[in-house]
Amino acid sequence: MNDVAKLADVSLKTVSRVVNGTESVSAAKAVRVEAAIRELGFRRNEQARQLRQGTTATIGLIIEDLADPFYSTLARAVEEVAHAHHHALLVSSSAEDPRRAEELVRSLSGRGIDGLIITPAEGMDPRVLAAEGEAGCSLVFVDRPSVDVDADTVLVDNRGGTAAGVRHLLAGGHRRIAFVGDTASLYTAQERRIGYLEALETAGIERDDNLVLMANPAAPESGEAFLALLDQADPPTAILAGNNRWSVRVVRLLRQRGIGVALVGFDDFELADALEPPVSVVAQDPAAVGRLAAELLFSRLAGDTGPRQHIQLGATLIPRGSGERAPR
Amino acid sequence: MNDVAKLADVSLKTVSRVVNGTESVSAAKAVRVEAAIRELGFRRNEQARQLRQGTTATIGLIIEDLADPFYSTLARAVEEVAHAHHHALLVSSSAEDPRRAEELVRSLSGRGIDGLIITPAEGMDPRVLAAEGEAGCSLVFVDRPSVDVDADTVLVDNRGGTAAGVRHLLAGGHRRIAFVGDTASLYTAQERRIGYLEALETAGIERDDNLVLMANPAAPESGEAFLALLDQADPPTAILAGNNRWSVRVVRLLRQRGIGVALVGFDDFELADALEPPVSVVAQDPAAVGRLAAELLFSRLAGDTGPRQHIQLGATLIPRGSGERAPR
Repeated sequence: MNDVAKLADVSLKTVSRVVNGTESVSAAKAVRVEAAIRELGFRRNEQARQLRQGTTATIGLIIEDLADPFYSTLARAVEEVAHAHHHALLVSSSAEDPRRAEELVRSLSGRGIDGLIITPAEGMDPRVLAAEGEAGCSLVFVDRPSVDVDADTVLVDNRGGTAAGVRHLLAGGHRRIAFVGDTASLYTAQERRIGYLEALETAGIERDDNLVLMANPAAPESGEAFLALLDQADPPTAILAGNNRWSVRVVRLLRQRGIGVALVGFDDFELADALEPPVSVVAQDPAAVGRLAAELLFSRLAGDTGPRQHIQLGATLIPRGSGERAPR
Repeated sequence: MNDVAKLADVSLKTVSRVVNGTESVSAAKAVRVEAAIRELGFRRNEQARQLRQGTTATIGLIIEDLADPFYSTLARAVEEVAHAHHHALLVSSSAEDPRRAEELVRSLSGRGIDGLIITPAEGMDPRVLAAEGEAGCSLVFVDRPSVDVDADTVLVDNRGGTAAGVRHLLAGGHRRIAFVGDTASLYTAQERRIGYLEALETAGIERDDNLVLMANPAAPESGEAFLALLDQADPPTAILAGNNRWSVRVVRLLRQRGIGVALVGFDDFELADALEPPVSVVAQDPAAVGRLAAELLFSRLAGDTGPRQHIQLGATLIPRGSGERAPR
């Protein structure tokens, strides 16, 4: 830092201010310092700073699958907030494997992260996360609630959003509405099914379990199960797809069959509006989920010891065409 | 570890084998050790291990935008290889800002990463990366070549792939073929334009600069520029879109105008096959790019000092309908 200060012809204090981004410095000086830093190949030694400050300036994010657009958008938003706080981001995908998720928690924690944002994998041992909390690692749960751990959470109103989608189909005259959701053990899939059932009950429509399919949208056999649902004696005239993966799969299967069933999907997805017909959705805002979770985490890291926050974001119905088809 | 060994009723050596995953252990013992680890909330102290072994067991990945499906798929593949090597992954998006990219390199490097996979942002100071290489940080460049740094690279055959797309349109009888690519300063955009021009030249077709548009597909004004290209006196009958973002935008704009121009896009994208007409593409394999880059990096970390490798992956033409439309 002495060399940088000398080369840039500024005080050591000015170099420190530019490097840490803590206080304002005149633009001319900042430019000189930045140039000197590049010139000298100087790098702030984060590891040394860690030892001094007891922080790694690193946070962790454990999600289900980084390649899923919902999670990559969420991760990008977390990254942006972390960047603004001069923190780096460790990202890991649990691939919905509880043992892998536990291993990731221990692995990231062992690297001394300051905090962790996590979508807990179904079946995780709650003690693994409880141990992190006790060890002083700030935790924020996203997309699914905490399991046996008292921590901040950012969730989406899965029940309310799904119910709004079902009410929209009911208002269009549909009575035989199917629900096609992800594996029944997943929190979000369960919640959305409950929202579907509640909306039917409120409308006085008896539930029919032949109209409910809970299965992994990525599994080949799920396609056949869906076609069997369509082929029953008294088939559905409308479908509520429980997530973006199912919406995409349903669009493909309906097209393959040439059937014009009404469709509302939970989760928006790219090109939903460019399909024929454009797909009506109940849209979550994954970037808002990520941003709020990260802001919550950094407020805790900054010393906020207020009561736990449980934020629930709304989901928005976007009619585009597929959900406005009349019953056959 | 002593407590784990005692609780699991195995030797200290067995615990070590399970934790490090280095040697095989009987399934029964492994299960007991894992259970004892969970029971005791034991965590392998990575930081202590770092100090002993001189490694952070962490690698860095700097890409343009984690929310872009091309990069999130690439990142997911890198993560999987890192996970298999017991490494965690720091992910950062440069947002195509060279100063931010330089800052990220210094920031990740300061955290003591073992290696870095990077898509260099246009305009980065090459000295920042050269300094990392000299400091012993293994570097692999992906998607764009290294700038003034001798390092391993994994690229896609942008010229050859684009030329194949243009030849496909020429074979369909098109002579007025437009190229719509990203900002001219981007390496991949430049390369794809060259591939387009080469294919035309080989076919003996004179280039017409009125048929070339280089602009950021995310900018609102790019849409107007594209429509102006369509509205010229002698309009194109076919379009080669230079990346997935432009393909999506072109699909929307053509639909808005109700024009049936032929289209081949560089990059595959989700639902390309479900659009009407299904979009023909020249497909890259971002997961293969990420996997190969990560494997290259870990072979270097394992001590491979062989000559620099420059891997170029092919791109595959997938005809689906939009690229097979006849000229009007």
